[in-house]
Amino acid sequence: MREDSSAFPPPGPKQALEEGLALTPRFDANGLVTCVTTDRHSGDVLMVAHMNAEALARTVATGDAWYYSRSRGELWRKGATSGQTQRVVEMRVDCDQDAVWIKVEQAGGGACHTGRRSCFYRAVAVGGGAVPPLTFAE
Amino acid sequence: MREDSSAFPPPGPKQALEEGLALTPRFDANGLVTCVTTDRHSGDVLMVAHMNAEALARTVATGDAWYYSRSRGELWRKGATSGQTQRVVEMRVDCDQDAVWIKVEQAGGGACHTGRRSCFYRAVAVGGGAVPPLTFAE
Repeated sequence: MREDSSAFPPPGPKQALEEGLALTPRFDANGLVTCVTTDRHSGDVLMVAHMNAEALARTVATGDAWYYSRSRGELWRKGATSGQTQRVVEMRVDCDQDAVWIKVEQAGGGACHTGRRSCFYRAVAVGGGAVPPLTFAE
Repeated sequence: MREDSSAFPPPGPKQALEEGLALTPRFDANGLVTCVTTDRHSGDVLMVAHMNAEALARTVATGDAWYYSRSRGELWRKGATSGQTQRVVEMRVDCDQDAVWIKVEQAGGGACHTGRRSCFYRAVAVGGGAVPPLTFAE
């Protein structure tokens, strides 16, 4: 597999992009799509990360979650060093094909590098006007 | 409310960002954070979009989902023209504060501009090696 987007055809016009049966991801200027990862059991959002063409192709091919780390600038199989692997049980792509959603079987106790199950462990109270302090939600 | 990020303090060091109680979003080079929107009832991911500081501040203040449209270059209250409004029942922020997750009460039948309930209406079969055709999932 190559670093560029050659594993996927280029995006077509709006109708093909939205109603077609070809996976033609719309990678951004940095060559990335957004990936939302949810827990197959709880349905909770575990993390939001990015995939380049190779990470997406490897995830599709193997069923293991691969990402591209923007901060480290590298392809990364989730859990390769931490044991927090993710087995993909379902993948979806959105209407304009710039985001994917994977439901995973999360191993190793959690998805977050802080040790928590989900990266979204703090809540923001809404509807009160001002921005309130966060609260820990788990 | 202003267009810049003045509604929020600037992000602090890693420890404060990850374990602190201040909402200090890490807006990207375009001034945006990623927002994952899920259905409060089904748990399904309805859409992935972006918020600038003003969209985030308005969402927090009002409890209605506001986004920033990259393609139209404008702040946008979801459903303002379509009736597909979203009332936020819970908001979370992730470890490094560059993404938020909102659970919403979705009005108007769906979140997607195609008329579907979720933008993620096509599935990608994984684990089979090659990239397969998409299938419609709803």
